[in-house]
Amino acid sequence: MNICVIGLGLIGGSFAKAVKAYTPHSVQGVDRNPDVCRAALSCGAADAVFDPADCAGALQNADITLLCLYPEDAITFTEKHADSFKPDSVVADACGVKRPLSGRMNALAAIHGFYFVGGHPMAGLEHGGFENSTAALFKNASFIITPEDAPQPAVNAVTRLMLTLGFKTIKTSNPKEHDEMIAYTSQLPHVLACAYVENPLSANHKGFSAGSFADVSRVATINERLWAELMCENRDCLSEQLADLIGGLSAYKELIEKGDRDGLRNRLKKAREIKEKTL
Amino acid sequence: MNICVIGLGLIGGSFAKAVKAYTPHSVQGVDRNPDVCRAALSCGAADAVFDPADCAGALQNADITLLCLYPEDAITFTEKHADSFKPDSVVADACGVKRPLSGRMNALAAIHGFYFVGGHPMAGLEHGGFENSTAALFKNASFIITPEDAPQPAVNAVTRLMLTLGFKTIKTSNPKEHDEMIAYTSQLPHVLACAYVENPLSANHKGFSAGSFADVSRVATINERLWAELMCENRDCLSEQLADLIGGLSAYKELIEKGDRDGLRNRLKKAREIKEKTL
Repeated sequence: MNICVIGLGLIGGSFAKAVKAYTPHSVQGVDRNPDVCRAALSCGAADAVFDPADCAGALQNADITLLCLYPEDAITFTEKHADSFKPDSVVADACGVKRPLSGRMNALAAIHGFYFVGGHPMAGLEHGGFENSTAALFKNASFIITPEDAPQPAVNAVTRLMLTLGFKTIKTSNPKEHDEMIAYTSQLPHVLACAYVENPLSANHKGFSAGSFADVSRVATINERLWAELMCENRDCLSEQLADLIGGLSAYKELIEKGDRDGLRNRLKKAREIKEKTL
Repeated sequence: MNICVIGLGLIGGSFAKAVKAYTPHSVQGVDRNPDVCRAALSCGAADAVFDPADCAGALQNADITLLCLYPEDAITFTEKHADSFKPDSVVADACGVKRPLSGRMNALAAIHGFYFVGGHPMAGLEHGGFENSTAALFKNASFIITPEDAPQPAVNAVTRLMLTLGFKTIKTSNPKEHDEMIAYTSQLPHVLACAYVENPLSANHKGFSAGSFADVSRVATINERLWAELMCENRDCLSEQLADLIGGLSAYKELIEKGDRDGLRNRLKKAREIKEKTL
């Protein structure tokens, strides 16, 4: 197959490298940064590289196109190049929100005769960019797929590719469930990490922590442009999760301020039992 | 030296094992659970074991006594056995709060002629008890010491012992700073982990997370009896940290609900810069 990867950042670069490392498929890489294109070509992550303005040929030959762009850019790119996708080819994305893409992408797919399969690789690193990308990024990770009305052969093609690239789990979902769950499992921890480190005491943490400081604050090394977009595009779900957590913390605060040791112990016990069930 | 370890749970058991593994000192273990005493003796974690009701001889021979009990139990034990400590010997604790012990322990030390050195090993595991204790628990960890008015030779004795047991850093502090910092670096993440998993979506997290769910919720496998005591004993500091975090989360919530992408991006950027400085 010919795989076209649009956007060679951490995720796109890792997809390109993983396809070359683990499959016999060819990779056409597309990135607006010529330095990134050169790097991808010279390290063998891509067989050919293209500027977005000049990628029609690559799209016309691609059996699967992987959109590894920010959500709005993914839509804009698809609108601009909708005529160029090979008929009956598969276009999958890797965006961290799904509802904002669903309607427009499915409409474009129907009009222009390609198949859109929503996707979200549950993998990342604290630092982005092609320079941090690695073929091993997806090893044992989960790939969320939101196929909606895509035909089964298109879904199967994406599933097979992702399993070959190292993903351990393919989690089938839909845009609504995805956005709600991701608000809780990923966006909320990112907001939390940032709010947590803003405390002036964070400057003094060294020597005062066994690991909790590092765990809670890990993802505060955030790409603010990407995450401000993701969070605002998922504002209803994220706001609900924030309200839930603020409510929980406030209830604990009240128990602690009252010195209600029995009440606190009971609530901690219930939380522990919930945690144990999630393991 | 003779080291007497009072309480052979995760921390006390690990101290006993580390002393036997890494030093030539003898260990007298004290625990109210005869099964734990037998286990400690049979695995070589202690040279002799005693019930608390029968430990006066062990205390009279101890050069350093390590109190590895819950805070209130540590005070009660010391009050009960104050006459038995060897004159000029060192009594150190391992409690997660320091202000509640400071006044009473220093007074007992002054009256009964021993030296009290407050301590707090920054090490732990998700599951407690002697059965999970290990000589390697303190490897590369930080030991917080709050010596207050203890004479330098007593402080040096504890410092030397802790470095021998595997600790990498000895962080000198005082009860007030300790309790404030620990509220932020340790107690707040524990409340957070518990409040976070209480969300009903936690039951569905599998396949929807790269690692943030695991990181934020890790310490929700909490010992509720110990932590309800620690949190209530440090309620002023912990309440302040909870208020700070709730305020931060509420500010993020407002930016997200307004869809203020520029404001959100700026705030995330500042948080990232703070985080980078803590690394």
